[in-house]
Amino acid sequence: MHTAADSTIVPAASGRFLHDHVADFVRSLIEDGTLKPGDRVPSLRAIRRRLEVSMATATRAYETLEEGGWIEARPQSGFYVRSPRAAALEAPQRGHTPGRPERLDVPSLLGSLAPADESDNAVTLSLALPDPELLPTRALQRALTRVARAHPGASTEYAFPPGIETLRRQIAYRVAGAGCRVHPDDVLVTSGCAEALTIALQCVARPGDVIAVESPTFFNILTMIERLGMRALELPTDPLEGLDPQAFERALEHNSVSAALLVPNFNNPLGSCMPDAAKRRVVELAQRYALPVIEDDIYGDLHFGDRRPSLLRAFDDGSHVLTASSFSKTVAPGYRVGWLLAGRWREGANSLKHALSMATATLPQLVMADFLENGAYERHLRRLRSAYHAQVERMRHAIAQHFPAGTRVSEPRGGFLLWVQLPDRVQAIDVYRAALDAGVRVAPGNLFGSGAAYDQYLRLSCGAPWQPALETAIAALGRIVHDLAQWPAHGDIGA
Amino acid sequence: MHTAADSTIVPAASGRFLHDHVADFVRSLIEDGTLKPGDRVPSLRAIRRRLEVSMATATRAYETLEEGGWIEARPQSGFYVRSPRAAALEAPQRGHTPGRPERLDVPSLLGSLAPADESDNAVTLSLALPDPELLPTRALQRALTRVARAHPGASTEYAFPPGIETLRRQIAYRVAGAGCRVHPDDVLVTSGCAEALTIALQCVARPGDVIAVESPTFFNILTMIERLGMRALELPTDPLEGLDPQAFERALEHNSVSAALLVPNFNNPLGSCMPDAAKRRVVELAQRYALPVIEDDIYGDLHFGDRRPSLLRAFDDGSHVLTASSFSKTVAPGYRVGWLLAGRWREGANSLKHALSMATATLPQLVMADFLENGAYERHLRRLRSAYHAQVERMRHAIAQHFPAGTRVSEPRGGFLLWVQLPDRVQAIDVYRAALDAGVRVAPGNLFGSGAAYDQYLRLSCGAPWQPALETAIAALGRIVHDLAQWPAHGDIGA
Repeated sequence: MHTAADSTIVPAASGRFLHDHVADFVRSLIEDGTLKPGDRVPSLRAIRRRLEVSMATATRAYETLEEGGWIEARPQSGFYVRSPRAAALEAPQRGHTPGRPERLDVPSLLGSLAPADESDNAVTLSLALPDPELLPTRALQRALTRVARAHPGASTEYAFPPGIETLRRQIAYRVAGAGCRVHPDDVLVTSGCAEALTIALQCVARPGDVIAVESPTFFNILTMIERLGMRALELPTDPLEGLDPQAFERALEHNSVSAALLVPNFNNPLGSCMPDAAKRRVVELAQRYALPVIEDDIYGDLHFGDRRPSLLRAFDDGSHVLTASSFSKTVAPGYRVGWLLAGRWREGANSLKHALSMATATLPQLVMADFLENGAYERHLRRLRSAYHAQVERMRHAIAQHFPAGTRVSEPRGGFLLWVQLPDRVQAIDVYRAALDAGVRVAPGNLFGSGAAYDQYLRLSCGAPWQPALETAIAALGRIVHDLAQWPAHGDIGA
Repeated sequence: MHTAADSTIVPAASGRFLHDHVADFVRSLIEDGTLKPGDRVPSLRAIRRRLEVSMATATRAYETLEEGGWIEARPQSGFYVRSPRAAALEAPQRGHTPGRPERLDVPSLLGSLAPADESDNAVTLSLALPDPELLPTRALQRALTRVARAHPGASTEYAFPPGIETLRRQIAYRVAGAGCRVHPDDVLVTSGCAEALTIALQCVARPGDVIAVESPTFFNILTMIERLGMRALELPTDPLEGLDPQAFERALEHNSVSAALLVPNFNNPLGSCMPDAAKRRVVELAQRYALPVIEDDIYGDLHFGDRRPSLLRAFDDGSHVLTASSFSKTVAPGYRVGWLLAGRWREGANSLKHALSMATATLPQLVMADFLENGAYERHLRRLRSAYHAQVERMRHAIAQHFPAGTRVSEPRGGFLLWVQLPDRVQAIDVYRAALDAGVRVAPGNLFGSGAAYDQYLRLSCGAPWQPALETAIAALGRIVHDLAQWPAHGDIGA
């Protein structure tokens, strides 16, 4: 990242305002590549000092740059270079949803999304993984040392459901920040968000039942529903605002739905976020239809905007909404510390946890509790959100540069995932295969819905800080997509 | 434990052999309570030195004591005081099994088996918990320190299925010791044995399917089957030799069974162990009926006899038998490190693990791998087996002392659980309630089977070293059972 350059001070000149010259100066840094899309622009204070202008002049200059689409302000963080190319990208279109419950097969290629072993040097854009560099490794090490000293034997003992009390208190405190008052005893600690969702599903539905989900949605949610013998009913979504409450209402009118499993905040893969009004409406419908709604909030703390988005649970008292989340995308995927607010299913959820996996590992719970108590989480989150936002913007810019016309890309409001719609005729599975040969792993859209809805989509993860290897990988993907766009699709051959 | 006493050397006397006097000396230590049932008797070498007799004399003296039922030899460990009272206890009888698949309800009292919180001072005999004092806390702390130093960031990263390779290698090595050759890639690391069983069940059966189980069996197995929408078919067992292969064959002939879930080694609650011939027969039947058999081997390393009992898997190549186990009863319950050998269901098991809980916590896997690599496990196991054996014998002795006539108790061959059949008319649930009032938690037999089969049984855990509080607890239980045996049972009132 570059925050300063060696040019001389810009003098005030005839016919133009001083702030225009300040703006010219910053624009030149962007145009000559000294500042790249996603980079942080010198702060108002820094530019003021550097160019010896007043605060008002600097502020006016940055307003001009913002209006021109050169930079953007990010709350509590400063100004960043926008990518004009990325800004011109269109959002992906809706896929076709089948309109009836489906039994889904676990696609066999799921296994090959992850690297086979340590010798596998492929660039992995296929998994929603935070880069280890972004995680608070040192703070966790300190917490681990404290815990090991304070409770030498504790970590060997079972932490039976609902889990370690100090951790549940910290989670209840965090949830309060998202607009819900819950008691620590309402919190069940689970082995990550995945187990929380598994338990929630089994609390509210039985094999054979129909579960309403967003389309597209995280493939593990679809796999989980299928493996529990349930059926998924996929509902259409908006790429920015997620599930449409009207579509939800129609689905409830026309189908016998037993529960819903939604990702209202920064849906994986879309990055969409449901507005409060839509959330309120979904909860009203849940109440009217006596429908349990499970929300997966694993990305909720990773908002790019000012405000932490609300939980569905904020509009409910726990009699309809169950909330699942974890620290896997924010602190430590390997800790497997998630949680479930099961509301009125609390007792059932605790006993189900006991039956299915007995307890969550004790040591990671103790370390997480210590880490949260020490207040390091909020500071860490601010840095992390800013990093993810920059990485997402940088990746969008690279896609805009390297992918052919006709490519559409999501504009996520949080999280670190991009949803890419490929140009006409280009099949995701062909890109996936050619990319694998070229040493790049991507997640083909087919995984995120039933039938052929997302045959032409990819999900790319922006979990890692920008680096030359990523530029190379995106350029390679761009060439692959470009080449495939030149050729007739499978179906056309010999037709 | 007392291993020496201050009496004078016993002289050789007329009409009796010298070894008789040596035997008298030891017997007097037992009779006056210096040595208590379950205590270790001075070694041959020690008694030889102390009484200045030859090795042959000492050996002959101990043989006499063994023949007289005063002491027993334990392989690689020495001689221990037997309880003549406990030796006279009869084994529990078989409960009635319904003979048809049942859907079981999770009993609501399951939650109250565990202490409510830290302020709960009840003596907990209700849970199969190893006492923390018996666990290798220091060795694990050292392993933790090494791991934290060697891989500061590793513990924050996902350890995707099948799990950390160094740990899988160690597990494969351990399994080889139980008679099976498996490749590390055949091992799936899970969150404890419970998750391994959950995954195994879902690999081989679907909701609605019938699963054959032993009766009695661990209540969590019954709960798990019920929560997965399957039905349990309970098969009769022998209190010493476990599942009868003939009963198994009849069940397969007369029912449409989809899979079996068995605990062949030290069944919970019986402590029974299937002989190799019976195991071989069960595997032959599994092959003939193309029936997947899941074995839960969580107690397999805790044998009181010389030899580690075989796995079912030792008689199969992985095409019919799946093996689940963990380190929860031997090293660290709180680590939640278990494993599954899924045989030909390997790929399905890995993807199911991914769908249901994504990964097992990384840090406990790394620490366990380090602990195993350092060779501390075998040494620890020897000590632990000897401690559990002594604790079980001590508890049997206390039951023989304090419980009224008509009480029957299991004679486990490994593990640390006792299965107690109460005298006529005494209902386990009444004992459970009265004991709770008296500050003692027990597990009522009702949890271990359907219907009324085990209404008159209790399971007691001997996970903790003997101490006065346990003596007091067993005495209190004895009084409760005694009092209840004086009164007509519920059903008789007013009849």
